[in-house]
Amino acid sequence: MRTKQVFLDNAATSKPKPAAVAKAIMHYLSQIGTSPGRGGYNLSLEAGRIVLETREIVRSLFNAPAAEQVIFTPNVTYALNIALQGLLETGDHVITTSMEHNSVIRPLRALEQSRDLEITIVPCNRQGCLDPAAVKKALRPNTKLLVFTHASNVSGTVLPLADLAAIAQEAGILTVVDSAQTAGVLPLDFQRHKLDVLAFTGHKSLYGPPGTGGLIVRQQVAAKMKPLIFGGTGSKSDHEYQPEFLPDKFEAGTTNTVGLAGLQAGIKFITDIGLEQIAAHEKYLTRLFIAGLAELPQIKLHGPAADGNRISTVSITIPGQDAGTLAYRLDVEYGIMVRSGLHCAPLAHKTLGTFPKGTLRFSFGYFNSEHDVLYALKALKNLLIKTAS
Amino acid sequence: MRTKQVFLDNAATSKPKPAAVAKAIMHYLSQIGTSPGRGGYNLSLEAGRIVLETREIVRSLFNAPAAEQVIFTPNVTYALNIALQGLLETGDHVITTSMEHNSVIRPLRALEQSRDLEITIVPCNRQGCLDPAAVKKALRPNTKLLVFTHASNVSGTVLPLADLAAIAQEAGILTVVDSAQTAGVLPLDFQRHKLDVLAFTGHKSLYGPPGTGGLIVRQQVAAKMKPLIFGGTGSKSDHEYQPEFLPDKFEAGTTNTVGLAGLQAGIKFITDIGLEQIAAHEKYLTRLFIAGLAELPQIKLHGPAADGNRISTVSITIPGQDAGTLAYRLDVEYGIMVRSGLHCAPLAHKTLGTFPKGTLRFSFGYFNSEHDVLYALKALKNLLIKTAS
Repeated sequence: MRTKQVFLDNAATSKPKPAAVAKAIMHYLSQIGTSPGRGGYNLSLEAGRIVLETREIVRSLFNAPAAEQVIFTPNVTYALNIALQGLLETGDHVITTSMEHNSVIRPLRALEQSRDLEITIVPCNRQGCLDPAAVKKALRPNTKLLVFTHASNVSGTVLPLADLAAIAQEAGILTVVDSAQTAGVLPLDFQRHKLDVLAFTGHKSLYGPPGTGGLIVRQQVAAKMKPLIFGGTGSKSDHEYQPEFLPDKFEAGTTNTVGLAGLQAGIKFITDIGLEQIAAHEKYLTRLFIAGLAELPQIKLHGPAADGNRISTVSITIPGQDAGTLAYRLDVEYGIMVRSGLHCAPLAHKTLGTFPKGTLRFSFGYFNSEHDVLYALKALKNLLIKTAS
Repeated sequence: MRTKQVFLDNAATSKPKPAAVAKAIMHYLSQIGTSPGRGGYNLSLEAGRIVLETREIVRSLFNAPAAEQVIFTPNVTYALNIALQGLLETGDHVITTSMEHNSVIRPLRALEQSRDLEITIVPCNRQGCLDPAAVKKALRPNTKLLVFTHASNVSGTVLPLADLAAIAQEAGILTVVDSAQTAGVLPLDFQRHKLDVLAFTGHKSLYGPPGTGGLIVRQQVAAKMKPLIFGGTGSKSDHEYQPEFLPDKFEAGTTNTVGLAGLQAGIKFITDIGLEQIAAHEKYLTRLFIAGLAELPQIKLHGPAADGNRISTVSITIPGQDAGTLAYRLDVEYGIMVRSGLHCAPLAHKTLGTFPKGTLRFSFGYFNSEHDVLYALKALKNLLIKTAS
């Protein structure tokens, strides 16, 4: 049994979490342990305070106008579903890209069937790059919304957020951004980019536990957006209808307070270290890795080069070799954890030319070291030698 | 600052949790920390194993046919929304009761508007008791579904589950049960009662953390039930449509694995001690409390007597006194945590005759002692003396 463990699957979830995250969770469980509820006893108010503080730190990180515009959901998929199902109506046209995760594609396909939605999927190139002009061309009179991932969870390609948001703004359509792969790594400014919805996950680069995530929504957009879930909110308890104000309109049922306490600690970790510092470290590791790959000519990189517009998620294939087998061998023989396959993003793989076999995906996080990268490169080299011999 | 803390708000969330719950959460965070994903590395499979084990222990607790019929959601409100929004169609008639929480009433009211649903709310009596014959009378040719809470979160009144399920069964309509207040305390047998959907919360009497809950669904019903959330499932990743099989059809996005590890430990605690043992202890405390209330003639009990069909949730009012003020004084002067107001159940309070002022609600859990009950009674007595003098 191997004891060495090198976790290179940070695009799936960040691991480890900063020590403060477990500490915050334990503090919540042992010292608070109550549910937030308006007008309740002191410990219940303290629970509410933690949720509010978490809302505020999320607001600040993304520069949203007000904390109440931060809606918590169990994950980014729920957040995207609330936005897409809540905003898109029968006959609407929606534009998206060929690099999307199924968290965008599947709700759109379902709405296409149930609400006669028209969908345009703007193709990206073989590196996953999107030409903003193509989005502009796709606009129609009934286009309601543009939804896109800030960066691909397969190739790490960053999409041109500022340009896309500007196009949407000019066209008078809504901009919904999936920041699952970038929140906490790339700067995201809700107000500067004039976004309408920014969906985020808590358990990736925000270092929170799974079960956390959410969306930030513009007030005027929130007023038109229908809730997906109805139920108790601790507010307007005399009403049999969902309240209309934020965040309660979109937050029914008991909140994952334990998870939010952890998320708050995770985001504090980012602000303490500095997002630029984290990004720089991940960029350094990514460059080192891609430079090392260049010395292994059998390996094919799918996505931008080291200096391209990319994050630390790197997909490769080795012609003639099964990605699943390679991932398995990296785990069993080297203790290296990476993810192979289609990564819940079939369209992205079609774009990259790696469908249906998929890729071998390495994704580096702040807690990875230069040593981890060199070790992964050595392991890949050994696997290639062993296979060749 | 008071140091004594007596938590009597277990109907909101159970506190404390068994020590094993925090331990399981810590183990997950420090030793596993990965996301489940099919065909992944060993630690990812281990994450999947924990989720599967939790599914199995939930299946076993409620005697569901198969683990895959257990769908996890972030709370019981989401579970009820999936069932109601997924099953009810335009023109359907639905029957519910006047003791429901807003987690049932608000989705029904929203569907009434969006899908022209017809709703019959069968009135319960002043103790919150429901006459099954009234439900039978409410049946119409277009009745699709009967949804009801197993026990009121306001008065603790238990509704006649077996009789109601039998009526629904005979009428050929679906039975959806909200077990938020009873799962882990009263026996619930999915197969024996021939239920169609059983919605549960993890963080109350199942002793899990907030952020956990779910539903159990009959296979044939699941086939007709539409998903509410669409997205990545780690399965059929080559498909742009939600998979049709269980549990994936209703579980999109990253699962709250940390929370589920805690929930598993919570349910193990129940099976180790025995549900009957837990129920007996809570019944004893409830009887003790209600007997003590009888000696304070100013206090009015809203709900069944000590020997009635009830759980440990006890609502009272004191004529001429504000429940919110009483709750505040119990907290500040005695360290006793209870909840006042409408408890997200306006209809239930209308039924009990306590709308719109609400009640003062005491709810006892397994970790409460005889001493806690006597202390609460003493505090109430003191408050009455102080107010009278």
